[in-house]
Amino acid sequence: IAQNKDAAIKKLFDEVHYADIAEILDEVSFDDAIYIIKLLNSEKTSEILTELDEDIREKILENLSAQEIADEIGEMDTDDAADIIGELSDERQERVINALDDEELAADIKELLSYQDNTAGALMAKELVKVYETWTVAGCMRRIRGQAKDVTRVHSIYVVDKEDKLVGRLSLKDLIIAKSDQQIADILKDNVDAVNVNEDDEEVAKIMAKYDLEAIPVVDDNNVLLGRITIDDIVDVLKEEADKDYQLAAGLTQDVDSDDSILQLTKARLPWLFLGLIGGIGAFIIMEGFQGVFEKYASLFFFTPLIAAMAGNVGVQSSAIIVQGLANNDVKGSINSRLLKEMFLAALNGFILALFLFLFVWIYEGSINTGLAISVSLVAVIIVAGLIGTFVPLFLNKRGIDPAIATGPFITTSNDIFGILIYFLIAKLILGI
Amino acid sequence: IAQNKDAAIKKLFDEVHYADIAEILDEVSFDDAIYIIKLLNSEKTSEILTELDEDIREKILENLSAQEIADEIGEMDTDDAADIIGELSDERQERVINALDDEELAADIKELLSYQDNTAGALMAKELVKVYETWTVAGCMRRIRGQAKDVTRVHSIYVVDKEDKLVGRLSLKDLIIAKSDQQIADILKDNVDAVNVNEDDEEVAKIMAKYDLEAIPVVDDNNVLLGRITIDDIVDVLKEEADKDYQLAAGLTQDVDSDDSILQLTKARLPWLFLGLIGGIGAFIIMEGFQGVFEKYASLFFFTPLIAAMAGNVGVQSSAIIVQGLANNDVKGSINSRLLKEMFLAALNGFILALFLFLFVWIYEGSINTGLAISVSLVAVIIVAGLIGTFVPLFLNKRGIDPAIATGPFITTSNDIFGILIYFLIAKLILGI
Repeated sequence: IAQNKDAAIKKLFDEVHYADIAEILDEVSFDDAIYIIKLLNSEKTSEILTELDEDIREKILENLSAQEIADEIGEMDTDDAADIIGELSDERQERVINALDDEELAADIKELLSYQDNTAGALMAKELVKVYETWTVAGCMRRIRGQAKDVTRVHSIYVVDKEDKLVGRLSLKDLIIAKSDQQIADILKDNVDAVNVNEDDEEVAKIMAKYDLEAIPVVDDNNVLLGRITIDDIVDVLKEEADKDYQLAAGLTQDVDSDDSILQLTKARLPWLFLGLIGGIGAFIIMEGFQGVFEKYASLFFFTPLIAAMAGNVGVQSSAIIVQGLANNDVKGSINSRLLKEMFLAALNGFILALFLFLFVWIYEGSINTGLAISVSLVAVIIVAGLIGTFVPLFLNKRGIDPAIATGPFITTSNDIFGILIYFLIAKLILGI
Repeated sequence: IAQNKDAAIKKLFDEVHYADIAEILDEVSFDDAIYIIKLLNSEKTSEILTELDEDIREKILENLSAQEIADEIGEMDTDDAADIIGELSDERQERVINALDDEELAADIKELLSYQDNTAGALMAKELVKVYETWTVAGCMRRIRGQAKDVTRVHSIYVVDKEDKLVGRLSLKDLIIAKSDQQIADILKDNVDAVNVNEDDEEVAKIMAKYDLEAIPVVDDNNVLLGRITIDDIVDVLKEEADKDYQLAAGLTQDVDSDDSILQLTKARLPWLFLGLIGGIGAFIIMEGFQGVFEKYASLFFFTPLIAAMAGNVGVQSSAIIVQGLANNDVKGSINSRLLKEMFLAALNGFILALFLFLFVWIYEGSINTGLAISVSLVAVIIVAGLIGTFVPLFLNKRGIDPAIATGPFITTSNDIFGILIYFLIAKLILGI
């Protein structure tokens, strides 16, 4: 496409939404991407940069000078600007910030960079519409015309007192409906939700989703208004969180996507596979210990994959239910009552499955004893697997560890080993070997 | 708490946010919940009803008359109203809609109920601020003061022509900044994104997330403006979608949470467990077929749990990456190139793991031959498992089936069987039995 028809390309891209351009740039060759970026005007490219895939953005930024980056940054909202600068090396961060013309912006970005990852502070933007409670509606409208130019979307107007402490909020609608000589203090809504700047971002997401908020102000410990978080950032947090849980359940240790290099994918996949290998070796050692049983009841060994699979599946099911419940804040009651419920549940499921298995073994093998031994062990294995699957995430959560790591290979592997051990112990007992 | 101190309770709850009250009602006894609902004024209770857990809302609605429900519905936004009426039986739906005072609202709700589940139509609300392109800014402001009372939040003002076809949009900000005698047609932005009323809701979510939209207008096939969808509804869609994928990966067939009854939980859990049982029986039959091998190489059998676990884990990892990639629209290239990449990846992972396993078997068992047989089979099993895990979701997706069902027990079970079969076949070949 890029055969030096600059004007044509420029015109073509001018009419396309920046999110679509970002998608195109993700796919074209790297040189073309740089070429197109340099061609377009900086208002558009700054939007494109925020939308690009992180890997590609990193490469493009390496090819821009500190001044060029600073120009792009100057066009961005403070939160996007801080995110992108945060991806640079410390030394380049310095240089880019120093190259910014706008000193206020530089200060805002420095402030945003100072907050810890995954806090409200790291997520918020400095752009907001702020009015003082002593202003009148008419004066307020005048000021808003000025302030609102910097703010992409006005969700709420935040009202502060003379110490910049948050005292209430207003919607543009309230302002339009109000008479122009009324004082802000008389028409503000004082039940304004706000989050502390150090609040965890997932907590912020929960609050905003629960109260259906589209923007929430961020304050410091003294209730001084620092910034605001908008719902589109929260959508990203929710998506990231869901992806992370899903990946943990699938046994991936880091955020990868299918286009990553084989090396990156291996790094994400190998650790849990290695755990599975260790588990398998554990199972081997256990089974070898029961080798003597083989001479009499060889078929017992042929059921180990079944036992291991059931233990794994039941464990994953029960842990997934708990992990989701914890994420949605609806796991109530004590750990003991949870375990009791899971025990009944697993026993019921186990009994139904064991009945079926018993009939199969009885008919196929013609041995009631073997059938009984295998079926009873299956029930026991399912109960234990269910209890482990329920207990581990609850325990991790109590310890402040993300319970989602208890799903997937971790639970499968430990349940495999426990399951096989229990199986042989019980079978041996029943068959009297 | 509820010892007939009505006034005190009323006062207490008046100051609490409806989402918090809904949470409290989810926890108190059912009679208390009904009592509290009847106590509070209907503006608040209608908000509470929309926030309640579906199970509890159903029970509460059963205890209200059609007229009482209609009164609650009258206070709600059209989208929430339609959702709640949609939960009632057909016959009660009729009665409640007939009991509505507001005929326009009744018509809107009937329209919303007529759209299919999981489409833009089922998600949208009828409330929006609509202006005609021929109006002036001043006239527009007057009309908006009227219309905006029904709309909780004004995101965008939609501009239509005289046939109600969508021609553009305006923000309140644009309106405030404009001169009062300008015509709307002169200041509108004509690059307005809209979705068709029959569009899939997940598609709408993707569009809104991609373009960072907070509201999107919904139009019919003739571009006539029908309603709008706001980002808070999309947050719910995203959450539901993530939960569904997670549950499928964990082997749960329906949306359950940990507080559901044992019967409901069994219904969600048993089907996939049953599949696992069938798989296990398949593995049993395969292993029995190789019984003769046992006399010479008993230890081969002790590695079946390891082989099955690795096959399952690799399958889940590769399918999860594909499922997530498909959900994020970033799986590019042909199926063949995907499979080739996965083959390299699985071969690399498999080789590393097999090397470790070989060393273990060699040292522990003292047999190079056995070690070699097991290790080579492991590599083969991992490659096949990776290919199945990659192919199945891509295939399902091509066929228009949700690829997420290919994660979890489905892939684990089929990989268990294939894995064990391949393992014994290759081991037999290498050991020359």
